[in-house]
Parts: sequence; C-alpha cells; structure tokens
Amino acid sequence: ARQGSTLVSMKRRDKDFPFLPPAHRALTLDLFSAIDDRLDSVLLPSTVPSDVLRFQNPQGTAHGSVEIRSGSPTSLLDLVLQSWLHCKLPGGSGEINITTLFGFLNSTSHAPHLLVELIQGGPSSLVLVIDLLPRKDVVLHPDYLDEFYLETNLDGPRQDLERLPQVSPYRSPSLFIRSVLSPTAVAVTINGGKEVDALAFEEVMARHVGEAAKKVISIWIEKCLGAGQRVLEEERDGLERRDGMIKRKAVEIDLVANLPKMFGPEVADRVVAQVQKAFRVV
Amino acid sequence: ARQGSTLVSMKRRDKDFPFLPPAHRALTLDLFSAIDDRLDSVLLPSTVPSDVLRFQNPQGTAHGSVEIRSGSPTSLLDLVLQSWLHCKLPGGSGEINITTLFGFLNSTSHAPHLLVELIQGGPSSLVLVIDLLPRKDVVLHPDYLDEFYLETNLDGPRQDLERLPQVSPYRSPSLFIRSVLSPTAVAVTINGGKEVDALAFEEVMARHVGEAAKKVISIWIEKCLGAGQRVLEEERDGLERRDGMIKRKAVEIDLVANLPKMFGPEVADRVVAQVQKAFRVV
Repeated sequence: ARQGSTLVSMKRRDKDFPFLPPAHRALTLDLFSAIDDRLDSVLLPSTVPSDVLRFQNPQGTAHGSVEIRSGSPTSLLDLVLQSWLHCKLPGGSGEINITTLFGFLNSTSHAPHLLVELIQGGPSSLVLVIDLLPRKDVVLHPDYLDEFYLETNLDGPRQDLERLPQVSPYRSPSLFIRSVLSPTAVAVTINGGKEVDALAFEEVMARHVGEAAKKVISIWIEKCLGAGQRVLEEERDGLERRDGMIKRKAVEIDLVANLPKMFGPEVADRVVAQVQKAFRVV
Repeated sequence: ARQGSTLVSMKRRDKDFPFLPPAHRALTLDLFSAIDDRLDSVLLPSTVPSDVLRFQNPQGTAHGSVEIRSGSPTSLLDLVLQSWLHCKLPGGSGEINITTLFGFLNSTSHAPHLLVELIQGGPSSLVLVIDLLPRKDVVLHPDYLDEFYLETNLDGPRQDLERLPQVSPYRSPSLFIRSVLSPTAVAVTINGGKEVDALAFEEVMARHVGEAAKKVISIWIEKCLGAGQRVLEEERDGLERRDGMIKRKAVEIDLVANLPKMFGPEVADRVVAQVQKAFRVV
C-alpha cells in the first residue's frame, strides 16, 4: 500500500489540475492526496472512461475531470468521487472553478458520508462546504448526533473557520442541500474583499481551509471507516433508500443543473450518465 | 368566535406580561394575540393549574408563566404552548427574558409545527428563532420541502431579516436544536450594539421581527392548519414517534436545563411535570 500510494501521489502531481487557480489547485492536490494516500488499499482502480476522466467543451473554454473509484468488496466504502471543473465565463468576465470530493459508505455501515466542495467564483472569493452527511433522520436518532458529531468535536473546525474575518456563513439556494448537511457542516463564503490583498485569501485557503478539511477527513477515515460501524441487516433497506435520494439529488443539483451550460449537452450527458451509473441511480 | 377572541385579547392585555422589557413585551402581546384571535375557536380552555400559569422563585427575582391549550378533538391541532420567563441575574448584572410559542399539530396531519422563541439576554440583544418544524425526514421526502417551504416562500422572511445590519446568524449550542429546525428557519442574533441607540433595536423588534413572525404564523395557520393535510392511518405511528422525540428534547433542552437555575428545584419540577403531562412525554 505504501508503494501504491506513492505511485498515486506521483500520478496526481503529474496531472496537476492544470486549470485551477494556484491556491485552489494546491488545496485540491492536498485533499485528494490525503484520500488517495490513506484509502488506496481499500479503493479499486478507477473504472471511469478516459473521456470522463478528462473532458472539455468544443470551444476549449471549459475543462473538467470526474474520477470515481469503488471500495473493495470487504470494505465499508461504496465509492470515492473526485472531480474538478473549470469554466471561463463569456466575455472574459472571469472564470468559475469547482472541486468536489464525495466519500460514500455502503449500507453495511450507517456512518456519515464525506463531502468537500470548493466553488470559486472569483480570484479571491469562494464558497466552501465541508461536512459529514448524516445517514439517518437525526431528530429520530439523537444518539447518532452524539456519536458522530458531538464526541468527535466536529463543530470545532466550523467554529475555527467562522471566527476568521474573511469567512461568513453560506446558505445554498437549494433547500435540499441545506437539509442534507449536518448541524456541524462548514458552509461558508470566503471573501478576500477588494481591499485585502490576494495573500490573505491564499493564506486562508492554504492554512485554515486545508486544516479544517483535513481534520474532517481524518475524523471520517478514523471514526466512520473504522471497525464497529456495521449495521443490522434490517437497517440496510432504509439506508439505501435514503442514500439513493442523496445521490439522485446530488446529480440533479450539482451536475444536471450546471454541466450543460458549461460543457454543452453532449459532454454533459456523457458525464452525467457515467456518474449516475456509478451511483446506481440511473 | 369573534366575541370569544375579543375577550381573550382583553384578558391578555390585562395580564400584560408585567416583567418583560417594553419591545419584547409588545411583541409577545402581538404574537400571542395573533394566535388567540385566529385559533380561539379550535382551542379548548387552558387546563394548566394557576401555579403554573403564574409562578416565581422564593426570592421573587424570577417570574414566569406557562399556558397550554389543547386543540379541539376535530381539529388538526394538538396543543398551543405560550410561555414567558423573566429572571434577574445575581449581583444586579442584568436580566434574562424568554418568550416561547409552540404550535403542535396532532398525528392526523403531517404539516409542520410552529416555533417562535425570543431569548433576550440584554437591553438590546436578543436571540430569535422563528420556524415551522418539519415532521418528516426531508432528505427522504424532498416533496415535503417543496410543499411547505418552497411554495410558501418561507425563505423570504429569513432573507429579509438577515439583510438588516443588526442581525447575524445564530447557531444553537445544541446540535439537536440545529437539526430540528427547517432549512428556512430564522435563527438569528439581533444586536443593537453599544453605539447604536435603543431606538434602532426597538424598531427592529417592532417592525421587522414582528412582521417576519406574523408572516410565518399566517403561513402556518393557512397552509398547515388548513384542509387537505390529513394523513394515512399507517403514517401516524412514525409521526408520533418523531413528535415525541421533539417534545421530549424540547422539555429537556429548554426547561430541565434552565428552570432549576432560575426558579429553584421545587417550582421547576412542578412546571416541567405539567408540560410533560400536556406533551404526553412523562
């Protein structure tokens, strides 16, 4: 595994997310490598075809990549999705860059899923979501909150980030996305502002966002992928129904609503179909 | 009913919440009257004993009232709880004033419950929660979000309030409370600040908070208490289990954790027991 992860990291550095802005790119590299390094032994090789692993629009103004690796059959992992999207806005009015990291568990565990998303709409302005998504109705199961959110102090990274002057709370326009997030979710806007130099933004990204995201990723790997999380047979149907809704909505809100505008219908259809297949929500 | 509500309002004005600060008192009067005026015909008389309808601590530094009226047997209403608490802090370091309004539906409807809470910790600083609490796991039932939250534009009052410079988002220290709120919940801190005069705070309270709360109360009465919300027999068990958890936790977090400190164990026990009895969560 040690050998394997070094190879993956090297491959990763080689790919290098060529279009993302520097601080965003460094962070993406850092987070994807953290996942690859620690989960390589339980992840199967990517089965995504090369025209989804790397795609662009006909004009060459939009570029993207979606990589999906399934968990090995004996693990609690369903799949890990890592994607980045880059799109120049019409008329030279800037660009949008989106990085997404999903870690879904399968229904032999009820532990939370991992979500990290960076949506950068300007050189020093970014929406950040870092969360472990509950797999159950936590109102009916408050012990779930205690186990995965309170005892792990998942509210700590959120509090640390929200104390920074560049950071303010973010609410998704989608009521579903707001509802799917946990009560300790990091959901913030980071804004360098006009008067602050880019350095402040880059430092927030490199130091504070990186630290918070890696803390949550560590909790996910240690607590949620660890032993002792297997669930009873009769719980699995409920988990699969709820997970299916999360995945269907994620495709609908994240991809179906955005990819056609960015990449045109043909590329969008191809990428969406591949993700739906991997998510088993066709 | 018209006659009845006039009587109730007059009685209300007579009681007058003697200990609440002026802006808080006016708002409480306004909201409680809105409920009384519009729901009087479907609410039975209060059955709460007089020493719960009005109580104080032995030293006379804390005063409170809890009134609970059940819905008539043919209505969708389970009960309405209206309470206010006033407590001088030791050493003359200020006072705390709390107003709570709960409107619970029974399990013949799956429409949301109503919650309005004002927690005033200083002359011009207040935590405000206004929400319709979902009765279902909305991740599994996104159509529930569409029906009760999107189509009613419940996000509007929240957006209006959060635009004000005196208003900033509030997160309850309780992860359960955060989870029980809807994705359009108003959960904010209103802070007059040291340099702003009390007038600004009072205006925010009278105009903006009052307007938002009354808008949400109207939506609740028209949409949730209206016809067409009755549910199937087989859904009721699930609703009752989930409602039971909300009520149990509300008593635990709102009352059991605070009343003994404010009123001493004897008064606290009496009030808690009465609420538990009305909530059927003994």
